[in-house]
Amino acid sequence: MYQVDLNCDLGESFGSYKIGLDEDVISYISSANIACGFHGSDPLIMAKTVELAKKSNVCVGAHPGLPDLVGFGRRNMDISPQEAKAMVQYQIGALESFCKAQGTKMYHVKPHGALYNMAGKDLNLALAICEGIYEVNPDLILLALSGSKMIEAAKHIGLKVAREAFADRAYEEDGSLVSRTKEGSMILDENEAIKRVIRMIKENKVKTITGIDIPIKVDSICVHGDGIKALEFVRKINFSFEEEKIKIVSLSKIIL
Amino acid sequence: MYQVDLNCDLGESFGSYKIGLDEDVISYISSANIACGFHGSDPLIMAKTVELAKKSNVCVGAHPGLPDLVGFGRRNMDISPQEAKAMVQYQIGALESFCKAQGTKMYHVKPHGALYNMAGKDLNLALAICEGIYEVNPDLILLALSGSKMIEAAKHIGLKVAREAFADRAYEEDGSLVSRTKEGSMILDENEAIKRVIRMIKENKVKTITGIDIPIKVDSICVHGDGIKALEFVRKINFSFEEEKIKIVSLSKIIL
Amino acid sequence: MYQVDLNCDLGESFGSYKIGLDEDVISYISSANIACGFHGSDPLIMAKTVELAKKSNVCVGAHPGLPDLVGFGRRNMDISPQEAKAMVQYQIGALESFCKAQGTKMYHVKPHGALYNMAGKDLNLALAICEGIYEVNPDLILLALSGSKMIEAAKHIGLKVAREAFADRAYEEDGSLVSRTKEGSMILDENEAIKRVIRMIKENKVKTITGIDIPIKVDSICVHGDGIKALEFVRKINFSFEEEKIKIVSLSKIIL
Amino acid sequence: MYQVDLNCDLGESFGSYKIGLDEDVISYISSANIACGFHGSDPLIMAKTVELAKKSNVCVGAHPGLPDLVGFGRRNMDISPQEAKAMVQYQIGALESFCKAQGTKMYHVKPHGALYNMAGKDLNLALAICEGIYEVNPDLILLALSGSKMIEAAKHIGLKVAREAFADRAYEEDGSLVSRTKEGSMILDENEAIKRVIRMIKENKVKTITGIDIPIKVDSICVHGDGIKALEFVRKINFSFEEEKIKIVSLSKIIL
Repeated sequence: MYQVDLNCDLGESFGSYKIGLDEDVISYISSANIACGFHGSDPLIMAKTVELAKKSNVCVGAHPGLPDLVGFGRRNMDISPQEAKAMVQYQIGALESFCKAQGTKMYHVKPHGALYNMAGKDLNLALAICEGIYEVNPDLILLALSGSKMIEAAKHIGLKVAREAFADRAYEEDGSLVSRTKEGSMILDENEAIKRVIRMIKENKVKTITGIDIPIKVDSICVHGDGIKALEFVRKINFSFEEEKIKIVSLSKIIL
Repeated sequence: MYQVDLNCDLGESFGSYKIGLDEDVISYISSANIACGFHGSDPLIMAKTVELAKKSNVCVGAHPGLPDLVGFGRRNMDISPQEAKAMVQYQIGALESFCKAQGTKMYHVKPHGALYNMAGKDLNLALAICEGIYEVNPDLILLALSGSKMIEAAKHIGLKVAREAFADRAYEEDGSLVSRTKEGSMILDENEAIKRVIRMIKENKVKTITGIDIPIKVDSICVHGDGIKALEFVRKINFSFEEEKIKIVSLSKIIL
Repeated sequence: MYQVDLNCDLGESFGSYKIGLDEDVISYISSANIACGFHGSDPLIMAKTVELAKKSNVCVGAHPGLPDLVGFGRRNMDISPQEAKAMVQYQIGALESFCKAQGTKMYHVKPHGALYNMAGKDLNLALAICEGIYEVNPDLILLALSGSKMIEAAKHIGLKVAREAFADRAYEEDGSLVSRTKEGSMILDENEAIKRVIRMIKENKVKTITGIDIPIKVDSICVHGDGIKALEFVRKINFSFEEEKIKIVSLSKIIL
Repeated sequence: MYQVDLNCDLGESFGSYKIGLDEDVISYISSANIACGFHGSDPLIMAKTVELAKKSNVCVGAHPGLPDLVGFGRRNMDISPQEAKAMVQYQIGALESFCKAQGTKMYHVKPHGALYNMAGKDLNLALAICEGIYEVNPDLILLALSGSKMIEAAKHIGLKVAREAFADRAYEEDGSLVSRTKEGSMILDENEAIKRVIRMIKENKVKTITGIDIPIKVDSICVHGDGIKALEFVRKINFSFEEEKIKIVSLSKIIL
């Protein structure tokens, strides 16, 4: 029996601004990466999103981002490792507070957007983030791109780590994601995307954009809940996994 | 032997902007109210201020404020009790993270500025804040104005509470502070201010602006570190307390 | 022939966050109140919204708000008249820049949300705002609640002013809006709402919540574009006005 | 008779946070680059700083920065040319409003910190900024690093441009500033710094860090007012210029 975690970014609305079909997608995932107020979200929305995750038996994780609300945390910023460490500690503490208040637990941390991308390529940044998480709670699991510097850093620090893959993205031969600016970076055919994910899980292989097979280890698949189409895709993944005898389980059951 | 806590707001700098003589005043106080990023401070400064407090054996407390950096959290805002509760939980969690990372403990929570003033007069707001603190950690001590709605709310919720008095402020007959807009609101003579504080501690009395004595219970005295003059005053209080056999001890030793 | 302006708040999206059906509602209005970055909007969205208004031959106005993005500028804040004046000057200048860059003109200013409400009741705040606008450009038209302190302040300063009425709100006997917290504050029946507006325009009268007629002067009707239902209502108003021979014209043609 | 402009960043305080000895340094400069609320400043401080410059007969310029208050606009951010253009237009408009309100004029624009550095090296970013300024007001003068891409972009757009040099910074052979991370990047000896500046002005030459002479054209010298030492240096420059018959005149008299 195969098993994998399905993770999705949630709670990214802000004040009067709504983003994401959180109430719908929550039924189809096992882990929620909850925004912490820097790239999106605010205290009230964090409280409600933790409540939603708890009610839905979905594991809560922190989704810390860069202090760039207008850019939704997607613009690279030249921050120091010390700044990265402090902003991650700040944000995971803020979310932890809502978990404690509601008697639930925070299981993992997945950096958001540009912070995720920068730390995936910059070992010093990745080490600072991992150290920051470990200092606050050594039981937390880092959720990071399979094959990235984040994985390397987590192992170096002794932080638990889960390897994430993307259903809708093409891969380079070195295991990195094909840049969104390149043609062919997105897997547009949903059935093909699902087949690729199933192969990653069952065979630990993925075909690169250049057409060769590379090995890939996957503990969690990243899905999206930011529109009807995204939601439909998550539903399809759920059905396909059931047929393929792949059990969707939370990170806490995979990373021990 | 008398004893009292001396508390001071610390860590209110922001990015390149410096406020407060934190490194100097820390030697003369027993409790630090550390800003949490809403009215002042940022993650790096929070990390450094927790480190400074730990090194100086000063008890750490959270100093959550309104989301009004440009107004330094001093402008009343028409927030709902739910918003107040969520923003306090967010901020105490953020600070708690730095405490955990550095192996120290958070002992108390003192709302800042307009949040402190509004909650001192509005029982619903006070109840929401107390409930928010209690849910996150029932061992935390609320530090609030002696005689205010905050004290009432804390008792109602079952939250530990310490009563604070001000050396440099005049009191009304009902125990509230004389508004800063009224003449005579500030006690300008330092020696008189110190005498008043000593009388509060030893006799549990204070003379109001109208000239009568009222009862007052004091667990902590609020002092300031925002200038040379403020610093000199804190030093004087320390010397006077030593002469008067008043021991300066942290809240955690007073509120059990 | 009767004439009236139809105004709508536009450009209140922020970064990745979308609010309002700007592209649709723009066809049915004559004046756009464009958010200026404090309660909503950002520089890119302001540029695009000015472009949209210009292309649609809709008159541009500034819609300055309180510095409270998470509260969408709807929470009263205890700001000084000096702060109100400076924040209005800042925001109308920012919008003016995009108008100049695109060779179009800014015609009016309508404060947003809590700033609108507070200034409608507080003459000092209203005077500061009017003075601020007049100093920057004495040709600008203030768009304010008919019968409010804002109208009084504008007349005192010598600022041009247009009186606004709401189709979907009930009125008190003194001409103020019935608080949203009171039962009956909203006119839920669309046909009744439109009849009321037509009567305001043709007869200069409105029936209050208490059932008596009061006089009302109306230069502009405020409509909304924040949902399909709101949009439908704006369309209906357009059709009804056509039948009733009420011409929709921009403020610049009404206030000379 | 030689002449040069002396420019200084002013008005970078924020709310309760003070930075810079604006009141003192203003007497020794001819152009003020006034912060516009993104990397520092707020509406009230902008109003006061424009007033101070007007009273002191110092020419006002805008000093737009990145939306990074906690980083004081000094951290590179991966913004698009469109974003850069819009944020510059927004900020110069905001400042222009205070100039209009006080009956004074805005003469120049100098991007701040990381925006200045990034645009100095990235022609597309520089072109977008220059286009943004030109669209709003073709009479504005761009103040930019002598020899940078900003100068090239301004010429391409047809925007007036003034070339700036730094007294306290070492130069590379290509005319760029030696990175602050390299040894020898700062000219620490004040007398040497002043001699270098005088040579730039009189001989249009500067000795690089490698020891060779390169040509340099200078319309304005950048000085600082962020401390007693900086202030002393500005005074010294003033005295030296008087001795050397170099007249300090505003940009508007140099760039016609």
